Parts: sequence; C-alpha cells; structure tokens
Amino acid sequence: MSYTAEIISVGTELLLGNITNTDARDVSAMLSELGINVFFQTVVGDNPRRLKNAVNIARSRADIIITTGGLGPTYDDLTKQVIAELFGKKLVYNESEGDRIKKYFRERLKTDDMPENNLLQAMLPEGCTVFCNDMGTAPGCAFEAGGKHVLMLPGPPRECVSMFRKCAMPYLSRLSDGELHSHIIHIVGMTESAVEEKLTDIMQSLENPTLAPYAKEGEVTLRVTAKAGSADEAERMMLPVIENVRSVLGDVIYGVDKENLESAVLELLAEKGKTLSTAESCTGGFIAKRLTDVAGASRGYLGGVVTYSNESKTKLIGVDGDLIAEKGAVSCEVAVEMAKGVRDRLKTDIGISVTGVAGPDSDEKGTEVGTVYIALADESSVYCKEFHLGGERTRIRTHASARALDMVRRYLSGLDVI
Amino acid sequence: MSYTAEIISVGTELLLGNITNTDARDVSAMLSELGINVFFQTVVGDNPRRLKNAVNIARSRADIIITTGGLGPTYDDLTKQVIAELFGKKLVYNESEGDRIKKYFRERLKTDDMPENNLLQAMLPEGCTVFCNDMGTAPGCAFEAGGKHVLMLPGPPRECVSMFRKCAMPYLSRLSDGELHSHIIHIVGMTESAVEEKLTDIMQSLENPTLAPYAKEGEVTLRVTAKAGSADEAERMMLPVIENVRSVLGDVIYGVDKENLESAVLELLAEKGKTLSTAESCTGGFIAKRLTDVAGASRGYLGGVVTYSNESKTKLIGVDGDLIAEKGAVSCEVAVEMAKGVRDRLKTDIGISVTGVAGPDSDEKGTEVGTVYIALADESSVYCKEFHLGGERTRIRTHASARALDMVRRYLSGLDVI
Repeated sequence: MSYTAEIISVGTELLLGNITNTDARDVSAMLSELGINVFFQTVVGDNPRRLKNAVNIARSRADIIITTGGLGPTYDDLTKQVIAELFGKKLVYNESEGDRIKKYFRERLKTDDMPENNLLQAMLPEGCTVFCNDMGTAPGCAFEAGGKHVLMLPGPPRECVSMFRKCAMPYLSRLSDGELHSHIIHIVGMTESAVEEKLTDIMQSLENPTLAPYAKEGEVTLRVTAKAGSADEAERMMLPVIENVRSVLGDVIYGVDKENLESAVLELLAEKGKTLSTAESCTGGFIAKRLTDVAGASRGYLGGVVTYSNESKTKLIGVDGDLIAEKGAVSCEVAVEMAKGVRDRLKTDIGISVTGVAGPDSDEKGTEVGTVYIALADESSVYCKEFHLGGERTRIRTHASARALDMVRRYLSGLDVI
Repeated sequence: MSYTAEIISVGTELLLGNITNTDARDVSAMLSELGINVFFQTVVGDNPRRLKNAVNIARSRADIIITTGGLGPTYDDLTKQVIAELFGKKLVYNESEGDRIKKYFRERLKTDDMPENNLLQAMLPEGCTVFCNDMGTAPGCAFEAGGKHVLMLPGPPRECVSMFRKCAMPYLSRLSDGELHSHIIHIVGMTESAVEEKLTDIMQSLENPTLAPYAKEGEVTLRVTAKAGSADEAERMMLPVIENVRSVLGDVIYGVDKENLESAVLELLAEKGKTLSTAESCTGGFIAKRLTDVAGASRGYLGGVVTYSNESKTKLIGVDGDLIAEKGAVSCEVAVEMAKGVRDRLKTDIGISVTGVAGPDSDEKGTEVGTVYIALADESSVYCKEFHLGGERTRIRTHASARALDMVRRYLSGLDVI
C-alpha cells in the first residue's frame, strides 16, 4: 500500500516569518525518497488549541503525521502534551533519555547546573519508539495509534534532518518492508533541463531504484534510491543505474556522494599532490571563498589574487598593460596571462583565472554581459575557454566559479580541459 | 478590529521538497508588520480537490486568505479557478492585463510567439482589485466575498514579495484605515541579543510605531513601522524612534534603509573619493567576494590578495618570512604587514587585512579557534584589533568579513577604528 503523510511544523517564529521552514522542505524530500506521498504541510504556532485543530485535520486526511518543533524544555513547547492527549497516550519518564540529557549538559555544555525542566524532554508517550538526538537534548519519538503513525521530531534543522535520516527513515521504511538506500550523482557543466532531457526515458522507466534530479546553484545532482531487503541488495540494484547514467552523461559527472565541487577539486589536488592558485576578475574572490569554505583547503590551495581593476592585474601578477589596452581586460589573451602570472608568483603547479562581464552593464568595449574567459596554466601548457553565461550578476558569478573549478577538475582527472 | 490571515502556498514542488517556501516566510513577516496575525500556513499541491479542502479550512478559521502560486499559464495552475468556484465568482478576461502580458513577451522576452494559453493569466475574478506584476506575467488580485478577503499572489519569490509590498500591503492596510510606512536600521558589531537587551524597554513600550529586530548573518537589523494617515505623518512618528535607537546604540548603526554593509562601505568610498584593497587569510576571499557582489564595486575596490599560505603572504605582498616565523601567521604584527603590503602593491588609499583561525582545528601554535586579527592601513597610520569570534567555521568567516568591512566603515566615517 502507498502511505500518505502530513507534516505539521510547530512554532510561532515560523508564523512571524522570523525563520524559514527548511524542516518541512527537507522532511518532504526525504519522504519522497521513501515513496511516501505528502499532500499537505501545515505550520501552526505554539498554541495548544490551534495545534489540536491542525492535528485533528491531519488525522482525517493522512496515514502518517510528522511534527517538527515544540519539543524543547520551555512552557511554550507543547507538541508532546497535545499529541499524547489527542491519541490517548500517557507521557512517562524515560530514564535512559533523562540520563543522556544530564550527560549532554555535563559533557557538551560543560555545566552541572542543568535547569530541572530540561528533564521534561525525557517525558515520552508510553510504548513509543525513541528517536535519539545526536545533536541536541530533545529526543524524538514515534508510535502507532488508531491506525495512524505519529512521529515527533525536534525543530532545529540540523537535529531534525539528522534524526529523520537516522531514526525516522528506518522506522518508516519498515512500514513498507524493505530498506532504502541512496547515492547522489554530482554533475557540473550541464543545465538541469539538459540533464533531464537526456535521462527522461531512464527516469520514467525506473520504479525501483528511482532516479530524481535536484537542482543546485551552478550544478545538478541526481539521487538514486533503491528499496531492498538489505544494503547489499540495494547496492547491487543501484550500481547498473549509476553506470547507465555515467554512460549517458559521461565526464560531466564529477563524482558520487561528494560534498561539493570545491571539495572534489581539493581531494583531487591532494590525490595528485598538486597545488593551485587563483586569479579572479569578474568572480572577485568567489572561487577562493568556495575553496577556503572547506576546512583543510590550505593543503592544495595556496592563495590567489582578486584583480578587479586593470592596474591590479599588472601590479599583482604582471599582466602587460599594453596587452590589456589592445585586447581588452575581458579576453582570452588576458585570461591566459592572469593564469600564468598567478601560477608564477605563487609557484603552484596550476594557476586558474577568470575574467568576464558579470553585469548589469557591459564593459567599455561593449562586451556582452555573461561573456567569461577561463584559463588554466601548468608548467608547460595553457588552456583558455570562452563562455556565454545567462542570467543576472549573481548567477553569472556562481556559474563562472563553478566552470573554473570544473576546469581544474577536468585537468587533474586527465579529461579534455576545453 | 484585529484581523487574522492564513497563507496557502500552492505547488507540488513544495510538497516534494524541491524548493523552500520562502513566500510563506516573507508574506508572514510583512503581515506581522501590518499587525495582522497569522495562525496557520498551509502548503498544498497542484490538485483541485485538495486545494478546495485547504481553502475551505482556511475560510473557517481566518478573515483573510492569501494564496501564493498556481497562477501560471499551464494546466496544473489552478488557484484562480478553484478560488473563483468556491467563492461564486466568474473569471473574466481583463483586457489591460492581457495587453500587458502580450507586451511583456514582445519587449522583455523579445518574441512575438507568445503561447496563447498565457492569456489565461489575464482571466481574473469579476470585480476584483488587480495587482500588477512588475517582474513577470501573472497578475495577482484581491476581492471580498462572504465577509472574507481573498488575495492571490504569484509563486516566484521575487514576484510574490514585490507584489505584496507594492499592492497587497496598501490593500490590507486600508482594511484598518491608515497606511503603513517603515524604515530599516542596520547594525554591525553587536549581537542580536545585546541589541534586544538594550532596546527591550523601548520595544515593549512602543505600539505605533513598532520596533522589531531581524537577525541577519553577521549583522542585526531593526524595522520601525508606523501606521498613519499619510506618509508625512508616518515619517514624523518614526523619526523620534530612530533618533532614540541611535542615542541608545550609537555608532554601531551603519545606516538606515541600506542594501547591506558592503554597499554601505562602497558608498562611503565613493563619497570620500577613496580606494580600498584587501589581504585575506582566514576569510579566503570572502570580503572580496562580498564587495564584488555589488555592481559597480570597481569604482572604490581595486582588488586584493588571498594569502592562504605563509609563503603567499611573502610572495604576493612582501610580508617578512622571519616575522611570520617569529610571531605566527595569526598575529597583529602579520595582520599589519598584510594591510600595509597590499595597500602598497595596489596603491590604494586604504588596505584592510584579516588573519585568524576559522577552525575546525587550531593552528600549529595552538591559537584558539575564532581568534582573528583585523588590520587597516592608510598613508600614515595603521590600526589592528583582536577578535574572539564564536561558532563554527562558516560563522567565524562570516563575522570576520563583517568586522573587517565595519572597520573600513568606521575609518571612513571618522569614528574610532579600534
């Protein structure tokens, strides 16, 4: 049978617009992986009467009710009390959760002064399945009553998502016997619609495993999900799908189950024992920022320059001023000199450079907005590629930085660079 | 009387978790400014039966129903049809909106081949107030029926938010005679809780205008909102509140109604006719990226270096290697040499530098994670300040970049720099 779920997010701060309901989005996406339909999401404040109203409506139209939020220790955290009352469950003190909360205060928050009301968080519906919280104090839980499954998760996004993956997914996948496993395929250098067009037949023909795209700024990701009797079986089912996608898309796939493109590039640098430097004009430090977002980036990324003016290209990395005057700052020739210049100054194995027009205005030569040159220099060679990127300033900068990182990836992987 | 509103967001992609419901957040925040209570938000897919269910529930518990999404031209965009049927309204073709849509295709999308079904978007409930869409094709609208107000807004966030501010706010503020006007006060260098603590008496004593804080990564903003008979009257009411906040908080306020901190810094640079360069270690290009996010940044920001390794500090901007060995890369001495070095290389009026430990690990000298030195150099002076920033890597980098930009702001504004 196919189950339907409703998500009820509890918190007045959501109704005031102070925070974004990422929990509903993330839980929905994970339910979708499980093949469980979500027909409604509801947001309600920290008010027992209105929360009852929302739960009663959800009970009338869904098989599974999932709440996020309202499990904290303060007087306005009411989710467990309201749900327990509506489903005729007593709240009982769970000793091992109580001990875990005390330990959390002692060890992680380094205090013996735990406010007593924190132990209210260890009060759970009798006979429930306890969901342990690795990242905070409030445990979650699940129970079945009156033919409905009720799951309660904490509100803080990290806690909610981590608990859903670790505890709620196994609980829910048991409902439909079989366990779910998935892999993420990462793609760069192709638009989401181009990816979908190439894969539409595969996606539509698949039922288990499933294959679904997720757009990400400047990249595309595909999630392969299999339901099987065991992890090994799921792996055996997913492998041919991944191979099939690889054979269709080829080397625009930069990895499976990677953190992101910048991490993948840093991993490749470490693997090949190479170092990188950057010279950025229109991306203005965006590539450097992305690389240094990753802890430990300094092992492969040594630094770079942001040459946002013509003079800075000359002063920092010795690009010939006459060349800039003749060819324009936005040209393959200048991109090449930038990549060579920064590589030479920083004595790295590879130098990568970007120069282009991010908009909203064209440059003084009337170069079209979105024109971007990316160059890569190594000890003996230099490559340069021209791009015409669509959209506004932010999109152009994001895509230009992704394309530059991709050029480094292709170079280090021994693929065609341009 | 005090009105209550319910927001119904329509779109299957929300229920699949493919996109985040920022519309519900932003519309809620704007309703909160208007003094209208939101007790429920609902999300429902592109399904007429379930949308009817959601609208009927909302009608039973709110005075104002606001829908977002489902106004597009395709077969699964059903919001207007469902709402019109439930409230007994006919949909009629609005000629001026039809003409506007044709013009939009001709002028903005540069095509004469408008698909005919786009004109379905000009079908609107009879007698409604039309909300013009400045950013896309689908108009929104509002009408009153059966004692309820119904407002329909497009789903794309830019269109939704802009239309709400421009059309829905005036419509709703008429319900409670008086118009609403607001100003945003921008603060940097103080935490949200410190701001709230200092202003708690003022915030609680105010009814009209109201004063409410909004946290933003690395900054704090306060919104002052007045309801009055005219814009002039609202201004007269808000002025003393803004002055009062200024007198309490002082020069941590960097402006009123600004875009963001980086824009404010670039404006000050233009105003004073000064130029800036950056030397970044632990922020790794984040400051450069923020400055160059702003179109036209090149007028005041000439460029900089990302010196993510010790050698790059020496090679790019001539920081003495012995000094780094003696004092450590994370030290006031090195920060000062970085600021002087980049200023000297790029011949700018001001050089700003950041060096610190963003974590997760300490540096080889055991410097605590979150220790950051920021230095500013001009022709004759140099300033350096030590910070201890809390949180994890991303937060430390965000705050360090904000503090560095703030130091430039303070310098250019003639305030104490450290």
